[in-house]
Amino acid sequence: MKQPPRWLPTWLGSYRRDQLPGDLTAGLIVTVMLIPQSLAYAMLAGLPPEMGLYASILPLLAYAALGSSMTLAVGPVAVASLMTASALQPLATPGSPEYVTLAIALALLSGVMLLAFGLLRLGFLAQLLSHPVISGFITGSALLIAIGQAHHLLGLPAGGEHALGQVWHLLTHLPEVEPVTAAIGLGALALLLLMRRWLGAHLLGKLAPMGVVILGTAAVALWQLDQSAGVRIVGEVPAGLPMLGLSLPGWNATLALLLPALLISLVGFVESVSVAQSLALKRRQRIVPNKELMGLGAANVASALSGGYPVTGGFARSVVNFAAGAQTPLAGVISAALMAGVLLGLTGWFHDLPHAVLAATIVVAVLQLVEFQTLRHAWRYDRADALAFAATAAGVLLLGVEAGILAGVALSLGVLVWRSSRPHIAVIGRVPGTEHFRNVLRHQVQTRPGLLALRVDENLFFANATLVEQHIETLLATDPAVRRVLLVCSGVNQIDTTALDMLTELERRLAQQGIELALAEVKGPVMDRLQHTPLGVRLQGRVYLSTHEGFEAG
Amino acid sequence: MKQPPRWLPTWLGSYRRDQLPGDLTAGLIVTVMLIPQSLAYAMLAGLPPEMGLYASILPLLAYAALGSSMTLAVGPVAVASLMTASALQPLATPGSPEYVTLAIALALLSGVMLLAFGLLRLGFLAQLLSHPVISGFITGSALLIAIGQAHHLLGLPAGGEHALGQVWHLLTHLPEVEPVTAAIGLGALALLLLMRRWLGAHLLGKLAPMGVVILGTAAVALWQLDQSAGVRIVGEVPAGLPMLGLSLPGWNATLALLLPALLISLVGFVESVSVAQSLALKRRQRIVPNKELMGLGAANVASALSGGYPVTGGFARSVVNFAAGAQTPLAGVISAALMAGVLLGLTGWFHDLPHAVLAATIVVAVLQLVEFQTLRHAWRYDRADALAFAATAAGVLLLGVEAGILAGVALSLGVLVWRSSRPHIAVIGRVPGTEHFRNVLRHQVQTRPGLLALRVDENLFFANATLVEQHIETLLATDPAVRRVLLVCSGVNQIDTTALDMLTELERRLAQQGIELALAEVKGPVMDRLQHTPLGVRLQGRVYLSTHEGFEAG
Repeated sequence: MKQPPRWLPTWLGSYRRDQLPGDLTAGLIVTVMLIPQSLAYAMLAGLPPEMGLYASILPLLAYAALGSSMTLAVGPVAVASLMTASALQPLATPGSPEYVTLAIALALLSGVMLLAFGLLRLGFLAQLLSHPVISGFITGSALLIAIGQAHHLLGLPAGGEHALGQVWHLLTHLPEVEPVTAAIGLGALALLLLMRRWLGAHLLGKLAPMGVVILGTAAVALWQLDQSAGVRIVGEVPAGLPMLGLSLPGWNATLALLLPALLISLVGFVESVSVAQSLALKRRQRIVPNKELMGLGAANVASALSGGYPVTGGFARSVVNFAAGAQTPLAGVISAALMAGVLLGLTGWFHDLPHAVLAATIVVAVLQLVEFQTLRHAWRYDRADALAFAATAAGVLLLGVEAGILAGVALSLGVLVWRSSRPHIAVIGRVPGTEHFRNVLRHQVQTRPGLLALRVDENLFFANATLVEQHIETLLATDPAVRRVLLVCSGVNQIDTTALDMLTELERRLAQQGIELALAEVKGPVMDRLQHTPLGVRLQGRVYLSTHEGFEAG
Repeated sequence: MKQPPRWLPTWLGSYRRDQLPGDLTAGLIVTVMLIPQSLAYAMLAGLPPEMGLYASILPLLAYAALGSSMTLAVGPVAVASLMTASALQPLATPGSPEYVTLAIALALLSGVMLLAFGLLRLGFLAQLLSHPVISGFITGSALLIAIGQAHHLLGLPAGGEHALGQVWHLLTHLPEVEPVTAAIGLGALALLLLMRRWLGAHLLGKLAPMGVVILGTAAVALWQLDQSAGVRIVGEVPAGLPMLGLSLPGWNATLALLLPALLISLVGFVESVSVAQSLALKRRQRIVPNKELMGLGAANVASALSGGYPVTGGFARSVVNFAAGAQTPLAGVISAALMAGVLLGLTGWFHDLPHAVLAATIVVAVLQLVEFQTLRHAWRYDRADALAFAATAAGVLLLGVEAGILAGVALSLGVLVWRSSRPHIAVIGRVPGTEHFRNVLRHQVQTRPGLLALRVDENLFFANATLVEQHIETLLATDPAVRRVLLVCSGVNQIDTTALDMLTELERRLAQQGIELALAEVKGPVMDRLQHTPLGVRLQGRVYLSTHEGFEAG
């Protein structure tokens, strides 16, 4: 067999004809989902509808060229659109030319960052976000998005800063509801929810939004509801493919976009990788995080160059893409070609599409992202993780997306240090007839008089050094007969400078009192660093390979 | 023997006559150090000289009543004075009435915070600062203080934002040096450095600053150098004890002081406790961190009530106090009484004291705080800790004291997560003839075909869950014969929700491939939480007490 040229993506070089039917079907079905979603998410981001369409062409091709997932569907997604709106609203008026320029710059910055992370192989950066923080963030964002769409559903003006303010604004303006808009919006919502209940996870259910879009558009066009009943519609969508080019904002605006771009990149990357990974595992495929960074980075740069805004791998569309039989990123290429066709010939069809219908599709899409069962699981297993979930979700709702996710990250790190600062310390003895040692409080074990054998179940570092020292001093005070202290280091993977100072001081003080300090089960990497320190030199001959040896010695 | 009344401090209730000579000597010697230091540090803080004297009376009594150290010398110190100046300069003009009010409020806030931390038993909070961060902070502050005094030594106007700016300002204004001031300042500096070299650690050396102060004052008074040569002097110091009372700034100013007050409290507490602890250990005494919080808190509230500014336990004066034979806080009470005497009768003597001499005493005092040997030690033992030292010191010099210490704390936490995110994972085998298991790469050990026994030397949590999973997958890919994976959890002290999700997924995937996952040496607290999860249920019968049992089974 001839080797395909190196510059071709692997999937393309080894493309088999039997993969085509799956890719064709999936590309078609995803496009039918993508048309209403791209219009709706552009509205959510405060951008003109054509930007959603633009963000659904070149980015898909760029990802197909560089990404590693066979089934990830890239394009505009709800959470990144919300984050875009949240980043830009302090800087410009939604829909204004400056706002559009800033959205494009945001995609460019985000793309460049992702590419840089990929080149630097920083794929692990995504791990700074724990599962509960990610779930809390997505849940909070989904609720914030749903609340933010309610005014579109009811034909009310927008208002309110955070989630509570928006709810309050809706309640106080309830008498001003426009009845026809509300009928369309709530009708579309009810229809979508009913379709989901009837069709469940069936692929047909994924076509429901397109059906509702057609019904809503037809109703407006038929009775001219935009003129007669004030129903707000999408209006003119310019026909034709996007121009390639780039107009950049000034330095100050660019600086203000750095943090949002970083957060959009990280969140988008984490979301994409987790979807891509769970789909890949079902087919025993693997995705490569650093390649995903390149793929998503290229997709965002491509989006910026073609007048789009930040894109990433979407949860719902990727699942549909997979279920519809996508075998390779060719499915995405097909979607891109179909979207180009839509832009060339069908934009006129969107003129009469009511905002209320788009809002209904958004609400139904994001409600799938709410994950309260994660909170419930975390609550049972680990209260601190449940707290991180709740704090992140509440932070997003009350303080905004950026503050929310930063609070979540800070909280995860804080919990980590807090836990490590209060280590479990067990006095241990030998399980009779073995060389195994366990906690005297949990097991029937043998101890030796005059020997205090301790196991510290944590790395020794600045946040717990003093506590460990005090614990040992307290144990020694209760048993004046102790002549040897054996510190079992099986749980100690790191000893930092602060803890080294503490141990050095402790050893010297114990020696003055005629008490010997010995160590056991010091791990290789820890011992490598310890042996050249003054403490290591003093401890020579008193560091035992196993607890058993340390227990029997002396 | 009659029990002393409960409201008396323990040391006072059980005071022995033979302790008096030591306390008297120490109280006297510390006072001789305290007089020039309190004037100098008030100047450093941008406050009128009498505030330094005020801060050296009541705070000493308050600490004597509530503190736990027998030898800590409380009062104005260099680093807290620098932090005071740095907190107040953005809010008011140094020396103005508003500036004075803010300094008093800062002492009050800091005192209230310390008392609150003491009541809440938050003494462990100080452990958020690792030794390298504290050393880096003190070193950076000492250099910043020394650089900041250079213009006093040379008779130049002050100028420059951060350390580099100040150096640049000095260099560009060098032609404007006032020769007489410079002669006095540099002469005093040379004299102090020579005295230190000749007298070494001898107590007489500690009296040198007072000698230089007397010489400098006499020279100015004799030749009226303030009039004839423009030498800047302390000027009028109001006689009499401070009035008790409190005038508070507005809400906005109070809010702006919260973070500086917190940082001054934490840094002062950490510095005091470490000095007090190292001195107490030399005499087999103990200090109680939560009592120290109360003592220092009361001292700061007392300082605020008597027109002083933030105080804490000073390094140099405490060491002298100890060396001069202080037995109890009565030494501090004696210092306070002598300082009160100075305020009542001797303030006139300070009128002609030149600023340049005070600056020289500050420079010599703070140069002792520079600890580059800590950096050297850390560099040898732990590069990341050395980096934390250097970054904190550089941050203080270039960004200011608050940004510097916050950067140091963030860096310590970052290093912690970074290290834990790249755990040491060892494939292990049995040391022949024992039940002990070690790394196959470091030791001659026995393995079993079909069994992959792994020890992960780190807690399993969000920052390393993916990496651990990938590592296991990679090992499995290299040995397709493996039918059992034994994960030895002796180094795993925590498993968070993210890692639990990873393990659950891994176990299910391995089971599909006919590979069994088993655990060994799971610690009690980890098992307690694990056993009720779906993973715990699936793993029943496959969690072994010892690695040995896990190795032999299956």
